[in-house]
Amino acid sequence: MAMPQGVKTDPAYPIPETMKAWVLGDPGQLTFVDKAVPTPKKAEVLVRIDAVAICATDLEIIHHGPPAQIEGGSPFNKNFTPGHEYMGTVVALGKGVDEYRIGERVTVEIHAGCGQCKRCRQGMYTSCHNYGKNYGDVDKGHRANGFTTDGGFCEYQVNNINTLVHVHDSMSDEEATLVVTAGTAMYGLTELGGLVAGESVVVSGPGPIGLLGAAVAKALGAQPVILTGTRDNRLEIGRRLGADHVINVRNEDPVEAVRRLTDGKGVDYVVECSGAPNAVNEAAKMLNRGGKICLAAFPSDAVPVDVAYLVRNNIYLYGIRGEGKGATHRAEAFMRQKRFDATLVHTHTFEMENLPEALRYAKDRVEDAIKVVVRNKQAQRQAIAAE
Amino acid sequence: MAMPQGVKTDPAYPIPETMKAWVLGDPGQLTFVDKAVPTPKKAEVLVRIDAVAICATDLEIIHHGPPAQIEGGSPFNKNFTPGHEYMGTVVALGKGVDEYRIGERVTVEIHAGCGQCKRCRQGMYTSCHNYGKNYGDVDKGHRANGFTTDGGFCEYQVNNINTLVHVHDSMSDEEATLVVTAGTAMYGLTELGGLVAGESVVVSGPGPIGLLGAAVAKALGAQPVILTGTRDNRLEIGRRLGADHVINVRNEDPVEAVRRLTDGKGVDYVVECSGAPNAVNEAAKMLNRGGKICLAAFPSDAVPVDVAYLVRNNIYLYGIRGEGKGATHRAEAFMRQKRFDATLVHTHTFEMENLPEALRYAKDRVEDAIKVVVRNKQAQRQAIAAE
Amino acid sequence: MAMPQGVKTDPAYPIPETMKAWVLGDPGQLTFVDKAVPTPKKAEVLVRIDAVAICATDLEIIHHGPPAQIEGGSPFNKNFTPGHEYMGTVVALGKGVDEYRIGERVTVEIHAGCGQCKRCRQGMYTSCHNYGKNYGDVDKGHRANGFTTDGGFCEYQVNNINTLVHVHDSMSDEEATLVVTAGTAMYGLTELGGLVAGESVVVSGPGPIGLLGAAVAKALGAQPVILTGTRDNRLEIGRRLGADHVINVRNEDPVEAVRRLTDGKGVDYVVECSGAPNAVNEAAKMLNRGGKICLAAFPSDAVPVDVAYLVRNNIYLYGIRGEGKGATHRAEAFMRQKRFDATLVHTHTFEMENLPEALRYAKDRVEDAIKVVVRNKQAQRQAIAAE
Amino acid sequence: MAMPQGVKTDPAYPIPETMKAWVLGDPGQLTFVDKAVPTPKKAEVLVRIDAVAICATDLEIIHHGPPAQIEGGSPFNKNFTPGHEYMGTVVALGKGVDEYRIGERVTVEIHAGCGQCKRCRQGMYTSCHNYGKNYGDVDKGHRANGFTTDGGFCEYQVNNINTLVHVHDSMSDEEATLVVTAGTAMYGLTELGGLVAGESVVVSGPGPIGLLGAAVAKALGAQPVILTGTRDNRLEIGRRLGADHVINVRNEDPVEAVRRLTDGKGVDYVVECSGAPNAVNEAAKMLNRGGKICLAAFPSDAVPVDVAYLVRNNIYLYGIRGEGKGATHRAEAFMRQKRFDATLVHTHTFEMENLPEALRYAKDRVEDAIKVVVRNKQAQRQAIAAE
Repeated sequence: MAMPQGVKTDPAYPIPETMKAWVLGDPGQLTFVDKAVPTPKKAEVLVRIDAVAICATDLEIIHHGPPAQIEGGSPFNKNFTPGHEYMGTVVALGKGVDEYRIGERVTVEIHAGCGQCKRCRQGMYTSCHNYGKNYGDVDKGHRANGFTTDGGFCEYQVNNINTLVHVHDSMSDEEATLVVTAGTAMYGLTELGGLVAGESVVVSGPGPIGLLGAAVAKALGAQPVILTGTRDNRLEIGRRLGADHVINVRNEDPVEAVRRLTDGKGVDYVVECSGAPNAVNEAAKMLNRGGKICLAAFPSDAVPVDVAYLVRNNIYLYGIRGEGKGATHRAEAFMRQKRFDATLVHTHTFEMENLPEALRYAKDRVEDAIKVVVRNKQAQRQAIAAE
Repeated sequence: MAMPQGVKTDPAYPIPETMKAWVLGDPGQLTFVDKAVPTPKKAEVLVRIDAVAICATDLEIIHHGPPAQIEGGSPFNKNFTPGHEYMGTVVALGKGVDEYRIGERVTVEIHAGCGQCKRCRQGMYTSCHNYGKNYGDVDKGHRANGFTTDGGFCEYQVNNINTLVHVHDSMSDEEATLVVTAGTAMYGLTELGGLVAGESVVVSGPGPIGLLGAAVAKALGAQPVILTGTRDNRLEIGRRLGADHVINVRNEDPVEAVRRLTDGKGVDYVVECSGAPNAVNEAAKMLNRGGKICLAAFPSDAVPVDVAYLVRNNIYLYGIRGEGKGATHRAEAFMRQKRFDATLVHTHTFEMENLPEALRYAKDRVEDAIKVVVRNKQAQRQAIAAE
Repeated sequence: MAMPQGVKTDPAYPIPETMKAWVLGDPGQLTFVDKAVPTPKKAEVLVRIDAVAICATDLEIIHHGPPAQIEGGSPFNKNFTPGHEYMGTVVALGKGVDEYRIGERVTVEIHAGCGQCKRCRQGMYTSCHNYGKNYGDVDKGHRANGFTTDGGFCEYQVNNINTLVHVHDSMSDEEATLVVTAGTAMYGLTELGGLVAGESVVVSGPGPIGLLGAAVAKALGAQPVILTGTRDNRLEIGRRLGADHVINVRNEDPVEAVRRLTDGKGVDYVVECSGAPNAVNEAAKMLNRGGKICLAAFPSDAVPVDVAYLVRNNIYLYGIRGEGKGATHRAEAFMRQKRFDATLVHTHTFEMENLPEALRYAKDRVEDAIKVVVRNKQAQRQAIAAE
Repeated sequence: MAMPQGVKTDPAYPIPETMKAWVLGDPGQLTFVDKAVPTPKKAEVLVRIDAVAICATDLEIIHHGPPAQIEGGSPFNKNFTPGHEYMGTVVALGKGVDEYRIGERVTVEIHAGCGQCKRCRQGMYTSCHNYGKNYGDVDKGHRANGFTTDGGFCEYQVNNINTLVHVHDSMSDEEATLVVTAGTAMYGLTELGGLVAGESVVVSGPGPIGLLGAAVAKALGAQPVILTGTRDNRLEIGRRLGADHVINVRNEDPVEAVRRLTDGKGVDYVVECSGAPNAVNEAAKMLNRGGKICLAAFPSDAVPVDVAYLVRNNIYLYGIRGEGKGATHRAEAFMRQKRFDATLVHTHTFEMENLPEALRYAKDRVEDAIKVVVRNKQAQRQAIAAE
């Protein structure tokens, strides 16, 4: 393919003109079509996608649209390709890129801030004030791949280099797709202050973020790490990932259990990953005075919150979107150092062409699916050929 | 009076054995009785009370008990003296005190942390984990004067030196009682990051904390400072204290007004001082992405909160109790430097013996009362004698 | 002039093909030549330069080259235009810019980070790891105007929008050139923690940064603010800008004087702007335990430092380069709010064509020159025509 | 022994009237004498000392006096007992203590702040402004055991509960004496920001703090961790503790080696534990722009420092004293979780009565001694009896 001037390519990694890509039609409708391979601009690279994990938010986007209101409106029937937890191989370098090389394996963060708004300038690129602006006359270069710009359920995607994380040889493609999930948990703990060694942490909700949240908290030295949830099999995985205690909220009151496990003191931090309607109130009551809650999930409707309790107890509450402040790099470091086995949350693998079936597994938790990964067969073929 | 060994006194400031003090009987019942003058322990001083401002929380305590659950239970019929926004003159020094001298005018913070819990050791003394423990075998030395230990509606009170703020000669007794209120607003802005020069701030609710919050925000250089409320006369005082814009929420939708005043961008910070049921949701919608809310007030019951909005927009929410992290000293500095005229919120003065009438003015906002101050006539007599 | 596609212009602000510009030949040699007007890229604007202040670093660059080692080597005989403290009027908008409008008055920061390195991503754009890389194949878009890319001693210059600060109508062109100097002082105080209200601050060295440092510290509420120096006339200006005390180090030992003025306690912060050989040691001895030093100046050679004293007293030491972390916006807010009169440091004005004479005044401190400003006559003519 | 009123004891842990204690005579002279067992005050406990590690600072104090100037002057011939890295068993509880129980094993931090100065109130208790004040009329309750108050080369010592760290059953007495050393390294990394996962760290100087510094940095996820030193055997221990690379500075230039190991980029953090005269300059040159240096050691005399390099490269430099901000608790958490084997730095054990020989081993590094621990035989006997 003829790449624009200034883009570097390598014959060992030939790039076709078109690729196969899943695109979103009406809500819930995905079609596997031919689509032009995109081209990287300044500070961007082209990534050949090797594997993509499915996130609950992908299902939300596919069926209901992206969570944040964006200019440009809904993603339906706009040739939009979802998918944001992908990894792959760098195959072309945009202008000004020498941080990565062609052939390097990378995994990705979601958010590339515009770099020219107040929040980006503060390093808070996930809170970019030009969120979603990547078009036409007011192109700010913001990308939230799979949210507001094309994502990873396809063969090639461009990524700002700020969203790339090097993947070490010791990490499989599938494991690498989990870096951003661990990075989200890491970001939550970062905003909670980051110095959690010896501090007590509750993680509520053993979804992928919660499970890896328990793992990251333990890797950072938290003690105890308490995981709450409703499914014993997931809680057991949490225990293997580093949770010191697990609480099945179907069997006991989690607030009482946390108080009991902490000699009545309550914990220092709660990472809320359940989105349950009473989660904020329960989290608050699990905390000691001056404690902090990070919200990595949320109920869709407004819920009653005991604001007075928050104020009387000097409680700090943070909502996080994704994986800010370089947290994926910190998460990758722990994963490279084998501090926890993230692959415990990876349960199923499908080929890219079978994405609908993969999504069904993820959505309906078929066979207790946690993380379902789709692989790009073409990438596998090429990797074999390269050996 | 014979003070314990190690306590320093000065004949120029004679201390009687007993004093007049208001004590709380059944809810709402106050009696003016004779009570022993307390004695200062290590790191404490005895303050002769010269003036006390009435806070809405005093009314809450007198009628319903203190806001936080404390060991030892309710304050009723226990010879408890409320009142926490007082200032006065140091008349005795406990053991180990050389930071203050007898005859020095001081105003007070409320909270003396135990100094031996995790939060105190982090400098978060208003979140002391031994809150309320100031008795018997497990005396941790925590004091929240007027909340969990005797307060200022009397003639003398002990104070840990950590709760003292020097009062400059240029400041009247009445103005000095307002330092802790300004300090509470300052603490809110401190937890919001403190670097508010050039940032946009909404203060919702023109009570004393809100009005002085607008003043402190402006003194720190915030622009614009927007004050919302329901009473034009109070909003006008806010404008004189530093608010660039005021919004009467009876006349216009405050979220729309804030968006309009900020070219649609929303503000960086909201200091919520209204306690209105929808205040958290409105505050969130006034903010830009990544913005922060400090809650200095709260509704008594649980209220519906759009948690999803907080998470999707990376919003930070903090509840504060009082005046932590040395904020009163920063507030006093601004007041000493005449950056704003805090006395604009002081509307009425009564003698200590007329406390019930003063409380009625404060409670029912008689004659548009904002801050009502009671003075200690005895102190005035002594001050006259000393000249 | 024909601007590239995507650049917005306005007939009311016609842009010529060429302009007059000072360019650097051999060390110390400046020539006034015709030079092409530059064109703004994505996220950049073209600024018509209306006024430029002369900084000591300009003299350093003109005579010895820029302070930091940069790729591409020395600036001599490369058609390089120095000058970095300029302000002007936006006359063209590069791609993706809607934050500013044509005709808007702006003043500038120096550093536009690359936006794609670790430090930029943390918000530390003055520590950009791609410092100086703005050329050829590895163009990272870094700009340090007047240091590594063309600066302001000319008629037009491009600026990344991250380096722009809106100038309020109430501020003169000359005053606006001082925003970046005040911003540098503000950045120093930001790195020292920012919460300086009521804290004690020494500023050493009454050059422009030191004088405005005293002003900013006072505006933030510091007390006392102590300014040290060798020239009484400058110290007197410092006093008018907000210093509570001034110390002429020719008359008394500054460490002893600071100790005396603080009842023997020492101060919390020192902003070192003198670059004197013993400045770090003296600053350390002015501090109380746990205090902090910001270095905004430095001696050219290595100097003896009592490292043991720093360690034993838990002293924090920061070197700053310029005006990071949005500090110019905070400084501009104080200047717009008339918290101090920055024009007190502006002593002389010249026309752009007389730059060499202006530089001589600045270098030799002719007539006690502090800040010397050069104006662009062409800009004045156009401003007159526009009325 | 008759303890004062309010002190709790337990017959299972009888406390004698007197104990054996080493006391300091002239510089370098220690005598083993009988001394009264001290009694705990409010918020203090009495610890029966079971084991004490010898620190280089002990040798400094014994031969030259304590590092910081203190009121009360030199420690010689004042019945002073040195020793600060001790652990033991709680045998009596002072007034107001319920955080620990009699019979509990604890290890200690050195510094108990006064709790009533500005720094203590900020949580910076190692920078207490009442450092060393623990006597007579101005008793502020500050303790730096083994520095300004009696230490651990004896059988019993009092400790403020803020200086206690619980010792888990899985940790030996000897290992527990190393917690404060690991805690000092942890404090250094805390002041450097704490979020070091994935960041690059150099530790210079493989003494006990440096070796455990490499261990803590690795436990926190730093990569690479580079240790520099002059002795291969110590560097090898560093490697076993977690260093990814070791550099023998006798064989290669450490700045060049660090640059090589980081692809020319330099590292993010340096923890300087060598105290070498050129250490600050070398550390600065190992860093990338915006990097940070923590100084945990220092040369005794002033040394030439390239201040200009610090400023031009936005470098942050911190001196630390000991183990602040709760860092020992974070270190203990990592040690309890077996993240590294601190006992690798423990090389020799002596009985308390043989302290002079133990000191000789530590001072002269006899048999490559690193950490030498003295045990209290009496404690061992009692422990045996208790089984």
